[in-house]
Amino acid sequence: MHDLIRELRESNGSKIVLLVADGLGGLSLTPGGKTELESAKTPNLDACVRDGVCGLSIPVLPGITPGSGPGHLGLFGYDPLHYRIGRGILEALGINFQVGARDVATRGNFCTLDQNGLIADRRAGRPTTERCVAMCKLLQTVRVPGVEIFVEPVREHRFVVVFRGDDLGDAVNDTDPQQTGHAPLQAKGSDAASQKTAEAVNRFVAEADKVLKEHAPTNGVTLRGFARYPKIDTMQDIYGLRSAAIAVYPMYKGLARLVGMDVLDAGATLQDQVETLQRVWGQYDFFFLHYKYTDSTGEDGNFAAKVETIERFDAEIPKIRGLNPDVLIVTGDHSTPSKMKSHSWHPVPVLLTAKSCRTDTVTDFGESQCLHGGLGQFQAMYLLPMAMAHAGRLGKYGA
Amino acid sequence: MHDLIRELRESNGSKIVLLVADGLGGLSLTPGGKTELESAKTPNLDACVRDGVCGLSIPVLPGITPGSGPGHLGLFGYDPLHYRIGRGILEALGINFQVGARDVATRGNFCTLDQNGLIADRRAGRPTTERCVAMCKLLQTVRVPGVEIFVEPVREHRFVVVFRGDDLGDAVNDTDPQQTGHAPLQAKGSDAASQKTAEAVNRFVAEADKVLKEHAPTNGVTLRGFARYPKIDTMQDIYGLRSAAIAVYPMYKGLARLVGMDVLDAGATLQDQVETLQRVWGQYDFFFLHYKYTDSTGEDGNFAAKVETIERFDAEIPKIRGLNPDVLIVTGDHSTPSKMKSHSWHPVPVLLTAKSCRTDTVTDFGESQCLHGGLGQFQAMYLLPMAMAHAGRLGKYGA
Repeated sequence: MHDLIRELRESNGSKIVLLVADGLGGLSLTPGGKTELESAKTPNLDACVRDGVCGLSIPVLPGITPGSGPGHLGLFGYDPLHYRIGRGILEALGINFQVGARDVATRGNFCTLDQNGLIADRRAGRPTTERCVAMCKLLQTVRVPGVEIFVEPVREHRFVVVFRGDDLGDAVNDTDPQQTGHAPLQAKGSDAASQKTAEAVNRFVAEADKVLKEHAPTNGVTLRGFARYPKIDTMQDIYGLRSAAIAVYPMYKGLARLVGMDVLDAGATLQDQVETLQRVWGQYDFFFLHYKYTDSTGEDGNFAAKVETIERFDAEIPKIRGLNPDVLIVTGDHSTPSKMKSHSWHPVPVLLTAKSCRTDTVTDFGESQCLHGGLGQFQAMYLLPMAMAHAGRLGKYGA
Repeated sequence: MHDLIRELRESNGSKIVLLVADGLGGLSLTPGGKTELESAKTPNLDACVRDGVCGLSIPVLPGITPGSGPGHLGLFGYDPLHYRIGRGILEALGINFQVGARDVATRGNFCTLDQNGLIADRRAGRPTTERCVAMCKLLQTVRVPGVEIFVEPVREHRFVVVFRGDDLGDAVNDTDPQQTGHAPLQAKGSDAASQKTAEAVNRFVAEADKVLKEHAPTNGVTLRGFARYPKIDTMQDIYGLRSAAIAVYPMYKGLARLVGMDVLDAGATLQDQVETLQRVWGQYDFFFLHYKYTDSTGEDGNFAAKVETIERFDAEIPKIRGLNPDVLIVTGDHSTPSKMKSHSWHPVPVLLTAKSCRTDTVTDFGESQCLHGGLGQFQAMYLLPMAMAHAGRLGKYGA
C-alpha cells in the first residue's frame, strides 16, 4: 500500500485533523442498552456526523485486541501486523530519549523488596515523580563494562533504561515476575546477541540493588519490554504530510515521533492542546491530537466517568471545526469498554467530515449508528488513505 | 494470522460451541420473499440473536462457491485458499482410514458397465451398503506391483481406494466421465510422480473389472478426487483448543480429524449428537457439531423440507444453551439455496452469543436481518479468532 501511496500522492496545501479519543469504543452494560458514547450528550460530534460519513474501524484484524502501539500505527496508515514496536522503545520515545540503532530500551519499575529479596510491592507504593527522579539519579551512577547505560525517569514508579552497545539483541525475558512474594527474575537471552544484553541487564540489576539498598520502599527494580528501535519510514516520506502530534502522555508522543511527526509542546489539558493546534495551524498538513481520558476511565471500569470525558471532548470540537480543516476525523485507536475494564477487539466508531463525503443516514455519533454508516467496517490502516483522498491529496491510479 | 494467534492465545477454561447447519444460507423463491431460514419458525435461534450479535460470513471470497472442505476449513479458522484438501483424502478420513505421507487417496464409485464396457449407471443402481462391503472384499484381492493398495467401503455405491508407495503424485484426472454411454477414462498423470500413480490406477481398474465381471450391476468402478495427505497444523497447536467433533456423516468427521479434532461417536440423530455434547462437556474447549440436513434438503431443491429441518435444528438449541457455553456460534459452511439445488457463494447467516457481545438490532435469525448485524460481512476464517476473543482466550497484541 505504501508504494501505491508514494506513487499517487499530491500536495495541495489541504489540512487533515485526526482526533483520537483513546479507547473510544465501548459496550452497553446491559444487552440492547447504550454504550458510553451513545449515552454521552455530544451535540458537536453529532453535528459533524450529519455533515460527514461514519463507519467502524477494525484496529488490526477481527477479534484482535490491540495495545496502544498497533492501535495508533493503524490510524497513522501503517499495517500494525507488519510494524511491531516493543514497550521499551515506546517508553523511551515518550520521554524524548533519542533512541538509535545500537540501543535496546526497556521499561523499568521501582519495586519494594523485603528482607529476603522478594517483591513486596510491584510499584513501590507508587512513589512521587520527584522521588522517581531522585532514585534514577542514583541508578545513573551504575556502570557495566562493555555497554553504555542510560536511566531516565518517566513518572511515579516508572523509568526507562537504555542499553547501548554493538550487536545487542532484544529477545530477553521480562524480569518482573508479575506477582508479589517472588524475587525478580534473572534475564536470559534467547540468542547470542540477546544473551549479551541479558548479561548486562543482570549486572545492572545487581548494582542497582546495591545503590538502592537503603532507599525502601524504592529499593529494587524490575525491567520489561526489552526492544530495539524499529525501522519505519516517516509519514512525510510515505504520505508526503508534514505532521504534528499534540499529545500529553509520553507513549503517544513516542508513537508519533516513531513515524516522523513533530511532537509539539501540548500543555496539560485538552484546552491547551486545542490552543496548540490553533497556534501551529499554518505550519503542518496533518495534525494528530490525542485525548487519553476516554481510555483511562474505561480501564477504570467507570462508565459514568467515561461518558463525562466524552462530553468534555465534545465541547472542544467547535474550536477545531472553526479552523476549517479539509478533513476532520474523530475516532479511537481501539475500544475500551468500561464493562470490560480493558482494551478490546470491538470495532471503533469513526466519523469523517470533508466536502467530498457521500453523507449517510447517521445522525448521532455512536457504535450502533456507525454500524450503518457509509464507511462500513474497515481496517484502521485504510483510514489515512481515505483521508488523503478526501483532502485531494491522492491522484488517480492507472490511466 | 496463525502465528499471531499462537502468540496471543491464552487458556482460561472457557468453552466455545460451533453449530454448523450445513448449507444454512438460502434464497427466497420469489424476489423480496423469505428465504428458508426466514420462513422457518425459530424461536430459540431468535432468542439467541437478541442476546448476541449477527453477521454474514463469506466462506472463501465474494462469488466463490465452496465445497464442504473449504467451507469447513474457513469455519475452523484456516484460510481455505491456503489449505487445499482433495476429495479422496476427505473420504478416507471420513471412514477413519489412517492416511499418511506416502498415500494417494481417491473416491471410488461402483458403476454398471454394459456389454461394450460403457457406463450404463454411474451409481450401479445405488446398491445397499452390505453389497458395497462385499464388493470391496473382492477388490481387496487385487494386487498391483510397486504399490500397496487399500480398498474400504463407505456406503451404497461409494468406497475409498488408497495407493501407498514412494513418490506417488496426485495430479491424476478422474476416471469418471460424468455421463452414461461412455467408458471410464484412462488415468493420466500430469507429472512423472503422478504418472507413476496413474499407471498403478489403470492396472488396479483393469484387475477390478476382472474380479467384478460376474457381479452386475456392480461390475465396474470409477475413481475420482486423487489427493495426497495435506500437512495442516492442528487446532490444538494453533488455537490451543482441545477440540471435539460431533458429526454423523463421514466427510465432516474426516475434515475435523484433519485439523486434529477428536471425532466422537455421535450416534445417528441430532438428539444423539446433543447427548454426546452433554456427555463430553467437561473434556474439551471447542465443540463442532455438524447438522447435515439443511444442505441435503437444499440440494434436493425442497424448500419446505429445508424449512422443516431448520425448525428441527432450532428445537435442540435450548439443550445446548443449557450447557452455558461461553461462546455459541450458529452458522453454515456455505449457502445451499433450494432454489438452486446446489451450494452457492451467497454469504451465510451467523449468530454469536457471548457476554462481551456488542448487541445489535437483529431480532430474528435470517439473511436479511443478519445483513444489518454488528459483525457485518466478513471472511469465515475470522470467525474463530472472534470466538476466541469473546471467550477471553486472546491476549492483547502489542504494548
